[in-house]
Amino acid sequence: MKKDVVCIYSGGMDSFTLVNEAQHEGVLHSCLSFDYGQRHVKELQYAARWCESYGVPHHVIDLRSLTPHLLGSSLTDNVPMPEGHYAEDNMKLTVVPSRNTIMLAVASAYAVSHKLAAVRYGAHAGDHTIYPDCREEYVSAMNTVTLLANWHRVRIEAPYLEMTKVGILERGFELGLDYAQSWTCYKGGELACGKCGSCQERLEAFAHWNEKDPLEYAV
Amino acid sequence: MKKDVVCIYSGGMDSFTLVNEAQHEGVLHSCLSFDYGQRHVKELQYAARWCESYGVPHHVIDLRSLTPHLLGSSLTDNVPMPEGHYAEDNMKLTVVPSRNTIMLAVASAYAVSHKLAAVRYGAHAGDHTIYPDCREEYVSAMNTVTLLANWHRVRIEAPYLEMTKVGILERGFELGLDYAQSWTCYKGGELACGKCGSCQERLEAFAHWNEKDPLEYAV
Repeated sequence: MKKDVVCIYSGGMDSFTLVNEAQHEGVLHSCLSFDYGQRHVKELQYAARWCESYGVPHHVIDLRSLTPHLLGSSLTDNVPMPEGHYAEDNMKLTVVPSRNTIMLAVASAYAVSHKLAAVRYGAHAGDHTIYPDCREEYVSAMNTVTLLANWHRVRIEAPYLEMTKVGILERGFELGLDYAQSWTCYKGGELACGKCGSCQERLEAFAHWNEKDPLEYAV
Repeated sequence: MKKDVVCIYSGGMDSFTLVNEAQHEGVLHSCLSFDYGQRHVKELQYAARWCESYGVPHHVIDLRSLTPHLLGSSLTDNVPMPEGHYAEDNMKLTVVPSRNTIMLAVASAYAVSHKLAAVRYGAHAGDHTIYPDCREEYVSAMNTVTLLANWHRVRIEAPYLEMTKVGILERGFELGLDYAQSWTCYKGGELACGKCGSCQERLEAFAHWNEKDPLEYAV
């Protein structure tokens, strides 16, 4: 098996499962995380820790210089973070414009430089209604772009595209993963808040399997 | 006419013509330049000067933090700059991986933030053999991506896609443009070198129309 896949690794439970699967398959070359000034920069520390413990090269790409140009998102702006369930109107506030296109473009440049075959990211079905750039038609179009954009052809892979967080968690249980090593909360507290849409989705997925989330929560 | 187009403006003769046309049409909202650590950062000063003189908002997006990840290009690396004609093998050295995808992704995010209709860039037929991300099939795929990626739909426009530098220059002459306000040289000298592939292409385009390039050259 050739190590020719780079994973976009936020540190959250989806990408945590993604990198573990790629590592399990023996194809993981390296991981990229993106710092675009998000409040939940803490998840990047979780990504760094995992990579270090497995000896996987990890690069944090600093996109904070873009932040002034990426307006209209509570992930980076000084507008209140919505609480409660991932209701559509609520969570549209957390959309950074073209975020996945920017991350996939940079990751594909990295993949070309290192002569890798593919970029993987953790887009999943639970995000379809909120994030247009987590949908099948988008991933397919972006795959076409990255195959065409350079002499060295790079694929875009989103293996969880038709799965929900519940299915992703099942995959992780099969691999025996310890989800205390992943961070999901969109707020920047010492402990996960347990209240934001992201925490609630995570807790619901664990509840679905009658499992206790090993991560410590503030509530 | 609504000012709802943002142009990617390097400061070179192609994008110089592009922004002047958009300004002439009355649709130019603003210009973006990208600093990715290229040697010809001088062209950015030309872009800034034009925008200032026309009162057009201009933002230089700092992508230098990406440079360590964009290997294999003499535009940013410490490898010798190829001289002579834009021969294919020679100029492949100047390819920054996924460069247009990164710039168009960031520009589309900016366009979404400002509710603009389109991003324009100066891809042209003369670049087709060297830069895969200046071809029709690429532009079409990237247009699909940016239409799909956000709730606010943004088009990618490349009006010079089927034109050469000769045709672009003709367009500029029709508009009465002063090309001394554009900078093409890939080297970082006080005067344009007149020898690199980029300078030679430019000089050949002027020669085609029996016109003298108003820019001062070292040779």
